[in-house]
This record gives sequence, C-alpha cells and structure tokens, in this order.
Amino acid sequence: MTPVNTATKGVFVIAVTPFKENGALDHDSIDRMVDFYYEKGADGLTILGMMGEAPKLTQAESIDIARRTISRSAGRPVVVGVSAPGLAAIGELTKAVMDLGAAGVMVAPPSSLRTDEQITGYYRNVVATVGADVPVVLQDFPLSTGVQISSRTLGAIIEENAGIVMVKHEDWPGLQKISDLREAEAKGRRRVSILCGNAGVFLPEEMQRGADGAMTGFAYPEMMRDVCRLCEAGDQDRAQDLFDAYLPLVRYEQQPGIGLAVRKYILARRGAITSAVQRRLGATLNALATAEVERLVTRLERRLKELG
Amino acid sequence: MTPVNTATKGVFVIAVTPFKENGALDHDSIDRMVDFYYEKGADGLTILGMMGEAPKLTQAESIDIARRTISRSAGRPVVVGVSAPGLAAIGELTKAVMDLGAAGVMVAPPSSLRTDEQITGYYRNVVATVGADVPVVLQDFPLSTGVQISSRTLGAIIEENAGIVMVKHEDWPGLQKISDLREAEAKGRRRVSILCGNAGVFLPEEMQRGADGAMTGFAYPEMMRDVCRLCEAGDQDRAQDLFDAYLPLVRYEQQPGIGLAVRKYILARRGAITSAVQRRLGATLNALATAEVERLVTRLERRLKELG
Amino acid sequence: MTPVNTATKGVFVIAVTPFKENGALDHDSIDRMVDFYYEKGADGLTILGMMGEAPKLTQAESIDIARRTISRSAGRPVVVGVSAPGLAAIGELTKAVMDLGAAGVMVAPPSSLRTDEQITGYYRNVVATVGADVPVVLQDFPLSTGVQISSRTLGAIIEENAGIVMVKHEDWPGLQKISDLREAEAKGRRRVSILCGNAGVFLPEEMQRGADGAMTGFAYPEMMRDVCRLCEAGDQDRAQDLFDAYLPLVRYEQQPGIGLAVRKYILARRGAITSAVQRRLGATLNALATAEVERLVTRLERRLKELG
Amino acid sequence: MTPVNTATKGVFVIAVTPFKENGALDHDSIDRMVDFYYEKGADGLTILGMMGEAPKLTQAESIDIARRTISRSAGRPVVVGVSAPGLAAIGELTKAVMDLGAAGVMVAPPSSLRTDEQITGYYRNVVATVGADVPVVLQDFPLSTGVQISSRTLGAIIEENAGIVMVKHEDWPGLQKISDLREAEAKGRRRVSILCGNAGVFLPEEMQRGADGAMTGFAYPEMMRDVCRLCEAGDQDRAQDLFDAYLPLVRYEQQPGIGLAVRKYILARRGAITSAVQRRLGATLNALATAEVERLVTRLERRLKELG
Repeated sequence: MTPVNTATKGVFVIAVTPFKENGALDHDSIDRMVDFYYEKGADGLTILGMMGEAPKLTQAESIDIARRTISRSAGRPVVVGVSAPGLAAIGELTKAVMDLGAAGVMVAPPSSLRTDEQITGYYRNVVATVGADVPVVLQDFPLSTGVQISSRTLGAIIEENAGIVMVKHEDWPGLQKISDLREAEAKGRRRVSILCGNAGVFLPEEMQRGADGAMTGFAYPEMMRDVCRLCEAGDQDRAQDLFDAYLPLVRYEQQPGIGLAVRKYILARRGAITSAVQRRLGATLNALATAEVERLVTRLERRLKELG
Repeated sequence: MTPVNTATKGVFVIAVTPFKENGALDHDSIDRMVDFYYEKGADGLTILGMMGEAPKLTQAESIDIARRTISRSAGRPVVVGVSAPGLAAIGELTKAVMDLGAAGVMVAPPSSLRTDEQITGYYRNVVATVGADVPVVLQDFPLSTGVQISSRTLGAIIEENAGIVMVKHEDWPGLQKISDLREAEAKGRRRVSILCGNAGVFLPEEMQRGADGAMTGFAYPEMMRDVCRLCEAGDQDRAQDLFDAYLPLVRYEQQPGIGLAVRKYILARRGAITSAVQRRLGATLNALATAEVERLVTRLERRLKELG
Repeated sequence: MTPVNTATKGVFVIAVTPFKENGALDHDSIDRMVDFYYEKGADGLTILGMMGEAPKLTQAESIDIARRTISRSAGRPVVVGVSAPGLAAIGELTKAVMDLGAAGVMVAPPSSLRTDEQITGYYRNVVATVGADVPVVLQDFPLSTGVQISSRTLGAIIEENAGIVMVKHEDWPGLQKISDLREAEAKGRRRVSILCGNAGVFLPEEMQRGADGAMTGFAYPEMMRDVCRLCEAGDQDRAQDLFDAYLPLVRYEQQPGIGLAVRKYILARRGAITSAVQRRLGATLNALATAEVERLVTRLERRLKELG
Repeated sequence: MTPVNTATKGVFVIAVTPFKENGALDHDSIDRMVDFYYEKGADGLTILGMMGEAPKLTQAESIDIARRTISRSAGRPVVVGVSAPGLAAIGELTKAVMDLGAAGVMVAPPSSLRTDEQITGYYRNVVATVGADVPVVLQDFPLSTGVQISSRTLGAIIEENAGIVMVKHEDWPGLQKISDLREAEAKGRRRVSILCGNAGVFLPEEMQRGADGAMTGFAYPEMMRDVCRLCEAGDQDRAQDLFDAYLPLVRYEQQPGIGLAVRKYILARRGAITSAVQRRLGATLNALATAEVERLVTRLERRLKELG
C-alpha cells in the first residue's frame, strides 16, 4: 500500500466502527462501509480515531478492524489512529498496523501538555518511538484535546521531524493556521499535507487557504469529494453552493457527543452499516433528535434537486 | 423599564461596544447601534457580555455604557452582564446598573467551579448578593467557561432561586437541555425564560424545542427576529429556508476570537457603528478573512433575493 | 490470594517499576523490591499506578509485571492499577490480572469527567465492565486527574456499587472527606476501606480522622508502618514525632514529576532496585537535586537517632 | 516609598484582609496586623493577593486597604496584587495604588492563556498598560492559575520587559526554575529579584538555589525571616533545623481553600487580628480541624524550646 506523504491530497473519511446490536464487532458492515466510503468519493480512510470509538475496543479488536479495513481497501491508503496516554502503547499499535499495511498513523497530543516545549518534546518522542520510516499524521484538535499548538510551534515540530508528513487540521478558529503553514512553505519550509477535520464545517474556505482535502467523517463523503474537486478546479462558487446545501446537516452532525449518533444513524439509513448502535457510554438519538435529522435530510434532498 | 421575567420572549441582541480608532468609547456609535438593533428587530439588548469586551472597560466606562444604552433604549429592556471573579464586584455593578434602570443582570459561572454543589452554591450566593428583587439571567456557556451544568443541576438552581428568571442557553450540544427544562416545567417546576446564544447556529431547532427566542449578537438581527416569528407562527419550513440562507455567515461569525472582529466588521459595513476596531488584545481581520466575509455577504444577499 | 475488601487495613506501597539502564524491565529488581517493601512494613502492594510508569509499558509487559509481583508476594495482596481512557482496556487488563491472582483493581476517573452525573455514571460502567465480583479501589486524586468528587457524590457511588470496596484517598485538601465518609457510615452507610495517598504528607491526621492506612510510594515504608501502628495504638504524639522526622523528605518526594526520580533514587540507594532510571520522558535528578536529597537523608538519619 | 526593584531581598508577607464578624473591613486590625508583620520580621508586605480575599472586595475597599496599609507601613514597601480578567481593571487599580505610594504591583496570568506566545503577549500588554515606570512582580503560580510558564518563556518575558523586576516564584515543582533563572543571569541576562511563595514549603532549598527571600503568608513570619537570614549567613543546617520545626504547620497551612482559614485562625490566636472570619464563600475550621491546628501549634512551641 502506498503510504501517505507530504503530497497526499483528497478525502480521507474518518470511519466509524460498526457494531451489532449485541455490541460485537460487525464484520460484514465493516466491508460494506468500506465499499460505501470509496463509492461515495473517499480516496482513503482513517480508522480508530475519536469517532471510531477506539477507547471501547480491546487491542485485539483494534488490530482486527485494521486488518479487515486495510484488506478491503485493496491498496487504497488507510491511516490508523494510535493516540494513547503512553508511548509504549503508541509504539505497540503502530508496529502492528504498519505490519498489516497501514499508510501511516495519526497521533493527537495528550491533554496534559501545556508549554511549547512540552508539545515539541512530545512529538520528538513519538517519532523516535514509531521510527523515522513511519508516516505520522499530527492531529491538531484543541477543542477535544485542550492542547493549543501555535503556528510557530507547529512549524518547529514540522521542521524537526521529517516523519510527520501530514497535519489533520481541526483547530477552531483555524483558517489562519493553514495560511501560516503555506506561507512558511513558500519561504522555504518543507511541505506537509493538510487535510481538514472539524466535520468539514469550513471546507470551502480551508481549500481556498491551501488545504489538500478533508479528513473527517461526515456521512455524505460525496459532498467532501465534490467540494474538493470544484475548489481544485477553481469553481469556488459552485463548490460553495453545494456546500451550503449540506451545511445545515454538517452543523447538526458536528455536535460533540451526539454527533456520532447522528453520523451512524445516517450511515445506517444509507445502508452503509446495519446498525447505528454504539458501545456502552455512547449517546443515542431520541425521537426528537431523530425527527430533526430526518427533517434536515429531507430538506437536503430537496435542495440538491433544486441545484440540479 | 420593564424587568425581564420568566415569560420574556423575543430577540435580545448581545451588543458590541463601539470604540473610536484611538480606543476611546464612541458614544455616537452607541446611539446609532442601539437604534440599528431595534430597527432590525431586537426586543431588547444585552450589554457588557463576553462579546462586549467588558474586561477591557474601566468600571466608570461600564456604567457610562449602561447609562447611555438604557437611556437610548427608551424603555425597552436592557440586560447587563456583571460576571466577575468575585461577588463584591458583581454586587457593586448590579446595584449601579439596576439604579440606572437595567432590566436584569446576567451571570456566568467562574471557571473554577467543578462539582454540582459548587455550582448550586455559587448561584445561591449570587442571588443573595444581588438581592431577591433583581432578575438574574444564568448564562450556561460551557465552551467558554469550562463549567458543565447538567439539566438536573440547572433544575435544582432554578427551584432554589426565584431570582433566576431566565437561562441564556448556549451549551453545546444543548438541544436536549431545552427539552429537559420544558419537560420538567410540564411536570410542575416553575417556568423560566430560555433565550438561546451560540451565535444562533441552532436557532430553528431551539425554537422547536421550546426556546423563547434568541440572545446572541449575530450582525443581522432581522434573521433572528424572522426565524423566531416564523417558528412561533408554526411555519418551520419557511423559518429554516431563511435560516439556511444566513447559516454560512452565522457559522463564520461563530468562530471564537475572530468572530467578534467579523461581527464588528459587518456592523460597521452596515452603518451601525463607525469603526470595527477593538481595544488591545482584540483579533483583527486580515485581507484573506475580509475577502471571505465579503464573499459570504454577497452570497447571502443573492440568496435572500432568490428566496424573495 | 485474599482480595482486598471493605475492612482492609495497613500499608499498601505503590510500587515503582524497575528498569535496566537500557530501558528493559529489570526482573531481578522486581523481586528484590517486592521483598524490600514487605521487609520494611508493607501489608500489600499496588502496581501499575501513576508512579509505576504504567503508560510506558506494553500490555504484555504490564501483565508480566503483575505476574511476577503477585507470585513473589506469596499470598499477600497486590492491587493493580487499570485506569485507561476506555472501558475495553480496563476490562481486558482486569480480567488478565484477576486471573493471575490480583487482590483487586484500582481505577481513577478520566480527566474529561465534570458533572456529578458523569462521575457516578462512569463508576457504574466500570463496575459493570469488570464484574460485580472484582474488588474495585476508587482513586480520588483531583490534583492529577482534574476530576473533583464531592463527599456526597463519593457517597452516592459507594451506595450504588458494592464492588467498590476501597477509596484511595488523595484529595487535597481532603481531611474533611475522610470525616464525611466515616460520619455517613456511622449513620448507616456501608463501610469502605480508606487508604491514603498524597505521598503520606497528612498521614497522622488522616489516621486520626478514621483512615485505615496508607497507599502511597514513599521510599521508607517503615515510616508508614510505624505511624499507622502508633496511631492505631493511640500513641498520636509518638506517631507525629516519627512522622515529623521524615516530613522534610516526604515533602521533597511529593513534588510532581521529579518526585518519582527522587523515589527511585532512594530505592536504589537503599538497595531495593538496581537502577533509578526511568523510561523515556521521565524526569532525572541533576547534581543540585541529588545533593538536596542526600542532605535530607543525612538529616533524617541523624534525627532518627535522636529520637531513638 | 522605595519601589521594589531587581535587587529586592527579604521577607514580604502576603497579608490577609481582616474583617469584622459582620463582614465589614476591620481597620483597627489592619493597623495591628501591619505592625505585627513588621515586628515578626517582614521587610515589606504584599496585599490584595489571592490570600487577601481580593475578589470579595469592592474597588473602593481595595483602595481603602491599600491606603491604610501603605500609610501604616511608614515607608516600608507594599506590593499590591492587581490581577484581573482585563487590562482595564489592572490599569485602573495600578494607577490608584501607585498614586498612594505602592512599591509595585503583582500580576498573575489569566487562566485562559496556553501557548508561549499568548503568555509573552500578555505580559507585553500588562507592561504597556501599567506603564514602563511601574515595577511589576510576575506571579508564577501554575497550581492556581493553570498557566505553565517554562523557564525559557519566563526568560523571554524578562528580557523583553524591563518593567518586570521580580518573580513571585511558586511553580511546583519549581526548584530547577530558580537555578535556570540564576544560570541565565550568570551568562548575561539581567537580574530579577526572586521571592518564593507556596507557603514557604521549600524555603531552605529555594534560598540555596539563589532566591532572594520569601513572599508568602505563613502566620509565623519570624520563621521566614530567620531561615532567610541563616541561609544568607551560610548556616544552612541551623536554617533547616528551624524550618523543620515549623514544617508540620507550614504543610497544614498550605492546604488550598482551608489554608486561609488556618492562617487567619493563627493570626487571631497570636493577636494580630481580632477575628478569623472570612467573607462569604470562605472555608471555616470545624472542631476537628481546630484541634489539629492547636495540636500542631503546641508541638511547634515545644520543639522550638528544644531547639533553644
């Protein structure tokens, strides 16, 4: 499998983890979901991320999911989230999934980090732990981790660690950070790939600022594919028209906690997975929320017809 | 002036504080802005909130702004934000602005609070400090304060303190909390007014769930007025059509930090204030961000024409 | 092995994890250290806690350490720390170590928890995950976890979950919490064992308040043993005399981060382990700090002689 | 009054604010307390700090306390805590107290700061706000503020802002930070005064590392005076003997929250203030805690006699 690298572009969907109603892994749904994501426009997948319910999986299950997803992806790149409280677990899971053919690993900083030195020190140790030949995606998601990485510190980490090939960008607000990275590259810093998260809620602006694509789990990957393509083709207005049609739903799915329930509900509704169930401690949609989602989906479908 | 109470409905705009380029208070702009807000649909105003740059004001300036805004509002209700690290400052500012004719005061919890007991204890002390006859608005904004108030704890606070007449609701996700409050009221708990913040990004759903209106500073108050009226009239689809037209801009203005710069830029563009400048430590819009805002405004105007 | 239970008393030493200079596990030192702890007064051990560098261990290494420590303990109780970001890992490690003969497992709350409901919900799920027959030690350590559990919430958790048999008490300030727990028991709530952490810095007062002993890693377990015995025997003054002699060193070892380096240094100095080295990311003692420790040890030895 | 400067040495006691039982300011006790502090060895005072219940005071009361304390100090230096959420309040109070003859102002960083850039930017703005001629004390107290300032960032702030003349050092662990500061000065960075807080719990080591004295509120200033003098005179062993005698009480008084109640209790017991009462939201000593304090005081007096 081709590893991700500093030139990687396109849409990497953050995959959910499908479970059966009894809580067991649903292997058939993994296959179906993987096919669905690629049919709807994914260029690659990212598994075992925050939205993949990774902390609810045993180590054996995590490796099982990685094996099955990588195999079903048939050569397309699969990034694996390996964030953990300690370097040992990061190293252990990285070795296992790279051996299975993963395209790289993604690491968010632990929430205890505060100073710039602590953050740069952490990524130095991550790269030393996984090895220089493993492509690392740095997940910059302060709203979730509590760790704020300034543009300057992010630049210092990139300059120090050739192993970091991609930033999963989901700072908020974060548009300027994309511009900062690209400006520094124009002045000579090595390039990194920037794929954007945050449920895609700023995707048109992010592409304009120089992002290479999206890495998020919105349940309509075709929106992300089309917005990225239209932006690449310079048709910013058409991109935004399409984006705006989806935005009410993007916004609804972006809600922390319950957002995953919405996402799984829509994926099940679209036939990508059999059940929307989450493992214990997951939020569920009650009747009111379900009605809200249904209404937004109906409106989306109508609006898409209007747009032709 | 009529104080706010448990039946208050409508749109309370979170007012910005207009400054001159040299950093001085811009009194003419205060008058113009107050007129603008009411012309565009405000039923009342809220001043000296987080978006009013309150920490950058001296005590004398805060009282000056309150006096001028209340006077210009000519009887319409003005809520004053009085959040402070200590009860003494809360009591001091509350007395001053209530004497000036404020309709009530708004208090967010200090970020040091953690346990339910600490939170309920805090509001008990706030009410004891300001006095039982002063209407208090409880601002529930965890993303900013870091304080999470569960529906149960919020209910306990309401039951204990008759002085709390309104919740400024901006938990995220928070739709269920509105339903929880209304369900408890249906079972006998006293009613509170619920006005919603969070830049209005969930306003149609919030109205459906039982909110009484909006309390946020989106630079197009007419959107909030119209969405609230259409929802009240039961025309949810037309409300959402209108909302969707504004949503790309709502989303852009909702960005923490830079959002206030966007808001002031649009207010200046619309003639409500003379200068978009903020006092020291405020974010500014660079050329890229300004172009993004201009593009969204242009698209909004086009879309509003399409909608008739 | 006897599991820990609600009547457990005495000193449980929080064991370090000995490494060789090359970073490998030092099995010989594990044996020596286990013997040392029991010779110096431990009634049991707690392994894989925060001071055991657990996040730096692979799953296989964790189980290896548990096996070796339990075996060497020859029937004495060994509690195993199983805190993890997700329930799956907690369940997995719990099953493994209980099968090896652990006396119970210890779980600290994840730092994302805020409201009382979230905290009680979490422990409900922990007990459901590990099974009702596994003795659980609730670690209450807000300074490290950021999670504040009020006496009332702690009581609610105890009442709901019979599986929780012990509190590792290290709230700060926390003396009143011990009194609160014991008062509630006097009024009918079921008893729990309370062993105190926080490096032992309040051990005499904690014993007076009703604690059952200590669970912390101070490098002189004999201090904890003697203070506990003297307190149990009612000789509070002699207990405090002894305690005071050690207090300058307790204080020095209590420093976050560098404290573990001090502890391992002293353990190596006393012959309990071969090397004071920590795995990557661990703090080290420089010459100045080493001199400070040496000075405190020298003074301790002189003071102990004075006390006879 | 002589302002504090980069060469300031000695003991600055963090003063409490004495109240009457009815909650009013107790002016007589202010005078008595000021006299007491100087008699017991203070070289200066620091008022309106965290332990001075500053957030419970109105602006008028704060200025009243500053006036009275400065006047009673008769030329000895009084530093005033002016930390506030916004620069305007900092500027306002600074001007007022400097006009009254304060020796400088102390500013802790607001808890929202995270990155090094945010922290350095903040102090740049503080100095610009108060003016270059006002001596500023930077309070570095991460346990309370949540803001971690690395040695490097602290150094950058010192290099940039000549107005910052002193560091109130209470990082924990923080001994190395003192050494880092002094080492950088040995290599050419301008000197700052370092006075240590944290209730004095590491005072002997801090003096050895190069601190200039203590700035904390321990209720026995004579301990701090004598330890500082003995350390200055090179009699480290005698300093530590004395320190060790007080340490059990230092430790007890260092407890967050309840510590202030202990401190006021002892000050009232020693006759320095009339009442130990705190304004609303303050912790109180119950019978158990009072007995613990009494016991520690009795033991201290006995031990001091032993030491001669």
